[in-house]
Amino acid sequence: MTGLLETPYGTRDFLPAEAAAKREIEQKIFKLFALFGYEEVVTPTMEFLETLTTSGGRIIEPHLFKMFDGLNRTLALRHEMTTPIARLAVSRLKDKPLPLKLSYNTNVFRFRKNQPGRQCEFYQAGVELIGISNALADAEIVALAAQALTVAGLKDFKICLGQAEFVGSLVENLSPELQTQIKSAIERHDLVALKNLETDDAFKKIPTLQGGREILSAAEALAKNDRSRRALDNLKEIYRLLEVYGVAEKITFDLGLIRDFEYYTGMVFEAYAPGVGYSLAGGGRYDNMLKDFGAACPATGFALGIERILDARKFQGVEENSQAKKFYVSFAAGFQDSAIKKAASLRADGKIVELSLTSQKKSDAEKSCTEKSCTELIYLA
Amino acid sequence: MTGLLETPYGTRDFLPAEAAAKREIEQKIFKLFALFGYEEVVTPTMEFLETLTTSGGRIIEPHLFKMFDGLNRTLALRHEMTTPIARLAVSRLKDKPLPLKLSYNTNVFRFRKNQPGRQCEFYQAGVELIGISNALADAEIVALAAQALTVAGLKDFKICLGQAEFVGSLVENLSPELQTQIKSAIERHDLVALKNLETDDAFKKIPTLQGGREILSAAEALAKNDRSRRALDNLKEIYRLLEVYGVAEKITFDLGLIRDFEYYTGMVFEAYAPGVGYSLAGGGRYDNMLKDFGAACPATGFALGIERILDARKFQGVEENSQAKKFYVSFAAGFQDSAIKKAASLRADGKIVELSLTSQKKSDAEKSCTEKSCTELIYLA
Repeated sequence: MTGLLETPYGTRDFLPAEAAAKREIEQKIFKLFALFGYEEVVTPTMEFLETLTTSGGRIIEPHLFKMFDGLNRTLALRHEMTTPIARLAVSRLKDKPLPLKLSYNTNVFRFRKNQPGRQCEFYQAGVELIGISNALADAEIVALAAQALTVAGLKDFKICLGQAEFVGSLVENLSPELQTQIKSAIERHDLVALKNLETDDAFKKIPTLQGGREILSAAEALAKNDRSRRALDNLKEIYRLLEVYGVAEKITFDLGLIRDFEYYTGMVFEAYAPGVGYSLAGGGRYDNMLKDFGAACPATGFALGIERILDARKFQGVEENSQAKKFYVSFAAGFQDSAIKKAASLRADGKIVELSLTSQKKSDAEKSCTEKSCTELIYLA
Repeated sequence: MTGLLETPYGTRDFLPAEAAAKREIEQKIFKLFALFGYEEVVTPTMEFLETLTTSGGRIIEPHLFKMFDGLNRTLALRHEMTTPIARLAVSRLKDKPLPLKLSYNTNVFRFRKNQPGRQCEFYQAGVELIGISNALADAEIVALAAQALTVAGLKDFKICLGQAEFVGSLVENLSPELQTQIKSAIERHDLVALKNLETDDAFKKIPTLQGGREILSAAEALAKNDRSRRALDNLKEIYRLLEVYGVAEKITFDLGLIRDFEYYTGMVFEAYAPGVGYSLAGGGRYDNMLKDFGAACPATGFALGIERILDARKFQGVEENSQAKKFYVSFAAGFQDSAIKKAASLRADGKIVELSLTSQKKSDAEKSCTEKSCTELIYLA
C-alpha cells in the first residue's frame, strides 16, 4: 500500500484554493491574449519523439518522458509548446494568411531534478507570432508578456531584454568551438571562464552590459560590424515601441542574455520578480526553427510559467482570489424540496450555493456553514 | 521526415475554431459546477500504476499509457479522474468536513482502438461528491449533469437512469460465475446470451425495463426481496427529487443499465443525444471504491465527455461560439505609433483587436481584414 497515496517524483496536486488561484490567473491571461487577437490551439500531450527533437530539441532528449505506442514508435510528452505549434503552422495551418497569432495554456513535462520553481510537470501560457520579422512584432510580444504579468496580479517585475545577434556578431570570426565556449560562459554568467579564455575581445565586457537605456551606448562602443549595429538598432526600435505601449518602465537591458543560443536569432527576454530566483517568463525571436519542419518562416513568442507567477504573487502579497460569497442552504426535516428550490433560485442569480444534503438542526447547520467557509447561511424550517 | 508533422495514433489537434468551442463549453460547465459549490482540483497527468489499478482498474491496465520514472517505478497516464480524486480525498483532503464536493476539467488517456466519439487522449469535465449516501446526493449529481448538458448548449438529450443494486439483488443467490455471466450479458445488451442461460429467473426481463416512470411498477413485480425493493425505492425518490429540480422530463429509466458492474453500487446513469451513438456523460454511486485506498466512504459523481458534447452540438446545429467582433487596426507608413495606441484603447474597452504588424496600403488592409475574418477595419493614415 505504500506509495498508493503518493504522486510520482516531480508532480503535484493543486488543492481547491491552489487550483482556484491557478485558474484565475490563467483565465485573465487567456482573455488578454484573446484581446490581442491570439487564438488558442490545443495539441496532443504526446508527440512523436522525432517531432519534439527535430529543432534544437536534441539537448532536451534526456529530459523527455518517453513511451512507446502500439506500433513500436517512440512517443514523448511535450516539453514545451513552441514545437507542436511549429508543427501545426507548417501543416494544418499552412494556408492561413500570415502572420499567425496563436496562444496556448497547458501543461508541459521535463524530467529533471531540482528545477527551481517548477516540477517535472508544470503549466505554461504563451503565444507564438509566426510569419513576420520586425521590431513591431517583437515589441507586441514583449508588451503582451508585460501586460500578462500585470493582469496576473504582479505589480513588481522587470523584463530583461537582450539580442542574441549582438553576442553572435562579436564572436563571429572566432572558431566554432571558441564561439560555443564563449556563448556558454555568457549564458551561465561564468565571468571567470570568460576571463580565462585566450582572447581579449570585446565580448568579455558583455556581462557588464546590464541596466537602463544608457548601456546601449556602451554597447555601441563595442559594436564592430554592421551585424552588431543592426542588432542594437533593432533593440532600440523595440524599446521605443515599448515606450509607445507604455511598458518601457518595466524594461531593463541585459546584452549577456542569450538563452538557448542555438535557438534564438534576435530579441530575447526574461521576466523576473523580487523574491523569486528564477524567470517567470521567457521568449524571443526564433527565425530558424520552422525551416527544420520544412517551411522557413520567421517567428517570435514567449511562455509564462504559471506556478512561478503564483510564487511571485505570494511573495508580493497579492490577495488570493478573494473568496466569493458562498451560500450554505440547509433545512429542517420536511423542508428538503424547498431547500432545493431556494438553492436553484440563488444559483439562477449567479450565486454560489452549497446545498446541505441532509436535514440538520439549526445549530448543526450553523456549524457546517462555518466549517465549509460559507459566508451566509440560509436555513429553511 | 515522414511522420514529423503527424500526431500519434489516437491524438488530435484542436485548431482555433475547435479550441474556442471546447473552451466555451468547458468554461460554462466549470461555472455551473462552481455555482453548485463544487471546487476544482488539479492532479498530475501521471500517477503510479498501482494507484490507478487499485480499485476496479485492473480491467483497464492493458489500455494504460505506461512509462518508467528514474527510480524504476511504473507510471501511467491517468485514464479517468475518479481514482486520483479518491487518492486526494483519503490523503490530503482527509481532514476536510464531509461531504467533499470536487470538480475537474482535464484530459485523460486510454490506449484503445476504435473508441467511438473519442481519441486515446480525450477531455472530461466532472464532479465527485464524497462522504454521503442518500437520494438527495444522487439527485444533485443527476440534476447537475442535466444542467451541465443544457449550459453546454444541448437542447435535446436524455438521461437513462438505472440502479446497479436492482440487478444485483435479482441474481444474488446464483453462483458468482453465473452472476458475472448475467451481468456481463445485460451490460452488453446481449439478449440471446441471456435467453440461453440455464435459469428462468426474473433477470431475463431486465432488458425490457426501459421507459418512463411506469416501468418502475413492472420492476416492482420482479422485486423478490428487500434489497430489490430498496433499490427501486431509492430510484423513485431520486426521480421525485429530479422533479423538484425541474429536470425530470430529461429522465428515462433503464434497469438494464449497470455500467461497470464491479464498481457501481447504486444509482447509475448515462446521457444520450440524437445522432450521437455513444453516451455523452456517465456516472453513478460507487460506495466501495474509497475503501481500496484505506478509507471507506460513500461517493457519487459523473464525467462528461467534452468531444462527445461537441459532436452532439454539431448534430443539433448549436451555433458555434458566435464569432466575437474583432477589429483589424492597420496603418499607413508613419502611423505605427498611433496604431499601437488605438489598438490599446480598444482593448482597454474589452475589444478584440488584431494589430497589423506592418504598414499597408488601404486596399491591402481591407484585404487582410477580410482574410483574417475581422469584422471591422480601422485604418490610420
